[in-house]
Amino acid sequence: MAPPDGVTLADLGEDAFLRRLLRQGAAQGKRGFVGPGDDCAVIPYGQQVLLLKTDAVVEGVHFDKSLPPTAVGRKALNRAISDMAAMGGRPENALVTVFSPSDTSASYWEAVYRGIFRAARAAGVSLVGGELSSAPVCALSVALTGSARRGEIALRSGGRPGHVLYVTGRLGGSIRRKHWAFTPRLAEGQWLAQNHLVSAMMDLSDGLAADLPRLARSSGCGFSLNHVPCSRGISLREALCDGEDYELLFSVPPRLAARLETGWHKKFPRLLLTRIGTLHSHRKGREMPVSGFDHFLKQEQEQEGAQAVE
Amino acid sequence: MAPPDGVTLADLGEDAFLRRLLRQGAAQGKRGFVGPGDDCAVIPYGQQVLLLKTDAVVEGVHFDKSLPPTAVGRKALNRAISDMAAMGGRPENALVTVFSPSDTSASYWEAVYRGIFRAARAAGVSLVGGELSSAPVCALSVALTGSARRGEIALRSGGRPGHVLYVTGRLGGSIRRKHWAFTPRLAEGQWLAQNHLVSAMMDLSDGLAADLPRLARSSGCGFSLNHVPCSRGISLREALCDGEDYELLFSVPPRLAARLETGWHKKFPRLLLTRIGTLHSHRKGREMPVSGFDHFLKQEQEQEGAQAVE
Repeated sequence: MAPPDGVTLADLGEDAFLRRLLRQGAAQGKRGFVGPGDDCAVIPYGQQVLLLKTDAVVEGVHFDKSLPPTAVGRKALNRAISDMAAMGGRPENALVTVFSPSDTSASYWEAVYRGIFRAARAAGVSLVGGELSSAPVCALSVALTGSARRGEIALRSGGRPGHVLYVTGRLGGSIRRKHWAFTPRLAEGQWLAQNHLVSAMMDLSDGLAADLPRLARSSGCGFSLNHVPCSRGISLREALCDGEDYELLFSVPPRLAARLETGWHKKFPRLLLTRIGTLHSHRKGREMPVSGFDHFLKQEQEQEGAQAVE
Repeated sequence: MAPPDGVTLADLGEDAFLRRLLRQGAAQGKRGFVGPGDDCAVIPYGQQVLLLKTDAVVEGVHFDKSLPPTAVGRKALNRAISDMAAMGGRPENALVTVFSPSDTSASYWEAVYRGIFRAARAAGVSLVGGELSSAPVCALSVALTGSARRGEIALRSGGRPGHVLYVTGRLGGSIRRKHWAFTPRLAEGQWLAQNHLVSAMMDLSDGLAADLPRLARSSGCGFSLNHVPCSRGISLREALCDGEDYELLFSVPPRLAARLETGWHKKFPRLLLTRIGTLHSHRKGREMPVSGFDHFLKQEQEQEGAQAVE
């Protein structure tokens, strides 16, 4: 089909594409719902909220046959669990759709499922369904439900000027590290949300360079970035742009920052927490593209070794 | 990966494959859950149950570019809604994952989404999320949630020997008819379940020849088939095997059959309801393959024109 305007998905990118698709159905939103644009959809359900997330991995895009099949399965489910963690929610039930050519061996998929079940057990998730769909390429699509108490979920949109930005762990090098073996920050996300310490939160799947502007934009803020905790042997540019960190990025009202840091080191003494910058009202930063980090990159390379909160 | 036993998905088929995959996690089932094997997963949620369903359509398997894109979208969502109908549930929230090559036009997917929104509006479904995943082929994966009152859902497993089997509408010819333009039997499924008229129910997606043995097996029964309502110009074999009917198949305790038929004709006067056979305890029929219908096919062709309940 020739498009009237000739715009392809590559021209638009995922965020703009989904906004464009979904604006047609804007009238269908309901009060209290959090729809597209956050880590999970949020649906009021009595005193609770129901969290919904879908996520897919495709052979040749997110994995290939050189990756152990258990790792493919583990990663597929853990990506969705990481989004649940970023809301402070409890993941509960998963449905997995297997896309597969019919000549793929059953034992390959059994190994994939061993990885899925491993990740499910670790996070307390039940596999309640799924289906097999014939396809020319291997892929997995995961649908995950979860829950949280009303008022104990963290959205991307709650950040305000002056709020302090933090990330967990170290960023970058996901390709060189075992990027499939990450652990979703489930306990950490729940602790942050349940103790009302964060104003906005998301998980880092596309790299800080892409994800920090998203959080800031959702919160109607600009941001300044002063420090990035890089993985060992990883350049700052890689730490910003590699993606697949699955660490948490969140903002904290300044009056809660001391309580957060004290509580964190007691509760999670082995996981690095780094104050990376601040949200501000300077809205020029809002649409900062990756190249907008260039100035910061130069500064950082000159300074080296800014201090982490350790 | 060479499988130790060399079994491929084509050897196993979807049902056996999913059973094989999921038996690894059998210990993860929870009380009250209905997991894989029914039309939707069922999760207790207070006085309600949460229904979950995932379904995918893949280009070259379920649709091609000759199908209008709005029809692709409409069908993708309606397939999942049909499964919700088969449980007697109310569909509520959908998340849609778009798999697409990056050179596909944005306007193609906008047209697909017009179809999705059309089906969503007709069924009262809200689109609450989704994602875009790069892939070598176009596909849609739909995750749908729904709800029902506890005790007002229809499973596949409640049929008992002597229960009467019915189907809605006429079967077969989905390829020649507009198979993408079907209407999920939502009001009908809800009415049947809420009035406790059915002991077991499912929707016909793979054809009566594949789906009736599934319902019977889930109910621990055999079955006899006496009549099939064929679409105009469609042979009995096509009516049994074409698939994609998206009509309801259900069993009814004999003492409720008269009440069902009277109530049905009042409530849904324009939708054919046909008594097609009976569940029985003769378990030899349980694993009846498609060829098991051969005897019936011959009989039927000799008789022609058995009476429908009209």
